[in-house]
Amino acid sequence: MASIRAKITGVGHYLPEYVLTNKELEEYVETNDEWIKSRTGISERRLLKDPDKATSFMGEKAAIEALEDAGVDASEVDAIILATVTPDYLFPATAALVQKRIGATKAFAFDLSAACSGFLYALSTGGTMIESGRAKKVLIIGADKMSSILDFTDRTTCILFGDAAGAVLLEASDEDDGIVDYVHHTEGDEACMLYQPAGGSKNPATIETVNNKEHYLRQDGKSVFKKATEGMADVSLEIMERNGLKAEDIAWLVPHQANLRIIDATARRMGLDKEKVMINISHYGNTTAATIPLCLYDWKDKLKKGDNIILSAFGGGLTWGAIYLKWAK
Amino acid sequence: MASIRAKITGVGHYLPEYVLTNKELEEYVETNDEWIKSRTGISERRLLKDPDKATSFMGEKAAIEALEDAGVDASEVDAIILATVTPDYLFPATAALVQKRIGATKAFAFDLSAACSGFLYALSTGGTMIESGRAKKVLIIGADKMSSILDFTDRTTCILFGDAAGAVLLEASDEDDGIVDYVHHTEGDEACMLYQPAGGSKNPATIETVNNKEHYLRQDGKSVFKKATEGMADVSLEIMERNGLKAEDIAWLVPHQANLRIIDATARRMGLDKEKVMINISHYGNTTAATIPLCLYDWKDKLKKGDNIILSAFGGGLTWGAIYLKWAK
Repeated sequence: MASIRAKITGVGHYLPEYVLTNKELEEYVETNDEWIKSRTGISERRLLKDPDKATSFMGEKAAIEALEDAGVDASEVDAIILATVTPDYLFPATAALVQKRIGATKAFAFDLSAACSGFLYALSTGGTMIESGRAKKVLIIGADKMSSILDFTDRTTCILFGDAAGAVLLEASDEDDGIVDYVHHTEGDEACMLYQPAGGSKNPATIETVNNKEHYLRQDGKSVFKKATEGMADVSLEIMERNGLKAEDIAWLVPHQANLRIIDATARRMGLDKEKVMINISHYGNTTAATIPLCLYDWKDKLKKGDNIILSAFGGGLTWGAIYLKWAK
Repeated sequence: MASIRAKITGVGHYLPEYVLTNKELEEYVETNDEWIKSRTGISERRLLKDPDKATSFMGEKAAIEALEDAGVDASEVDAIILATVTPDYLFPATAALVQKRIGATKAFAFDLSAACSGFLYALSTGGTMIESGRAKKVLIIGADKMSSILDFTDRTTCILFGDAAGAVLLEASDEDDGIVDYVHHTEGDEACMLYQPAGGSKNPATIETVNNKEHYLRQDGKSVFKKATEGMADVSLEIMERNGLKAEDIAWLVPHQANLRIIDATARRMGLDKEKVMINISHYGNTTAATIPLCLYDWKDKLKKGDNIILSAFGGGLTWGAIYLKWAK
């Protein structure tokens, strides 16, 4: 395909300090640690408690760490793509706020909205900027302050999500490492399986939408679970087959962290042993656009140059996808 | 640069039926037709009055028309990028709703947020997907229901904006037409010159934010006007110089339609006669992500294969940019 490849040369992350345990959640909603753990795999998650800090704050920290890891100055970055469903504002773009604060003076910046698949969509999009020869260094950020849209009286949703950010720097490579292939799918969710009812042009904010809690995330858990289990496994197999990869060829699966049972089902369908699967959902919950770079950060010392890695996600939109890359560091 | 070029092969648009004239605005706020026309160049704008219809409705119509114009079936589209600051929902992405409704079964879809530069950022991003060889057909939509975030008691903002959508289909070309170059800039607007204060993770919707009208667009008109006049002219000159273009080489300037005086200043700095400048602000006002494809639609019968065209925009973010393309139809 492309003669220039886009490779990850730096990884960064940000996790807020506050740890919200299942035990503490028992105080807010009728639930318990055992139930949450057995159904989702989640023990605790982080919350960005400071009401003055939002998604851009976390994205900024993760971006700075990714640039440091790559040894690249912010002024060298050509573009910034920030995936989020919880932008600081509808406009300006959260990516623009990060651009300014980190001093990425040359970069243009935009937000990308594709929910839990946002990071993968942003990574492949930044990749094509590099593969086309138009850009040399693109910063990809996944950041979500999910607590800003959670109803802490709804036990079906508030237990699932956490706040975090992750970031990677993509740089041009003339070797055969970096992003090899991607497969993405979308199926517009007109059934409102996973959505935030109000706050957009369909249902602008009113006293009524606030009183009806329509600015919080809503999920038809059963439908989404079923779709996600199928979709994430299907797309992971699809990218393996397209690239002639067998289970033994894959060093790591980096799955979106929405539910441990979805991850397990995907790994099983791929024929992968559990020790090849990055799983940190227990500590962070579903951090939406941040889960995949958070995994890459947690595992980065174990990754070896040339490792075949499959990234895979499913989320609101509905959107799902997978990326096959060869680790380049 | 790239051996594959991305060319526009179809253009579509949607304008709501309702015409809001300056005369009617005189009923809502203390203003008058003469003042609005002399300061902005706007005589009337369109409004999508139906409260059940939002940005995706307009984007869908424009997308269908662009596909028809190109003679391409929706099922052939590889990706859909929808630029907007007024998505139907924070999630799912408005692009996903359009994907489903037009039957673009193969396409993945995401929203891109970069305010008035959103269409240009989306067009160049879709271009790199094609130039990299990863995609063959990418649908680029700019759509905004600005009336959903306008305070019709604020005469400094409600007179400026309108609702609309525009779309283009990008396809691979092995000739030297299509997108030749782009230059984009961002400078994060921490001063809140142009923003929607509430509704994101920084200021989630509350009774108070609704009562304080914080879900409406706010603009420091003077500061934005100054920045926009400089930025749009500077970036237009920058792309001319980078590509060795003189005024006589340029067939058309397609400027973002925010204010007639900004457009005039840009054309003057570029040394362009007014008959080379697409201007339709008088009828539609500032339709944010839709202005540039709306111009392309209105002028498409005058465009000739090989025409050198400069697209140029400035907007919230702050974001600005220019694209140089050779018309391919």
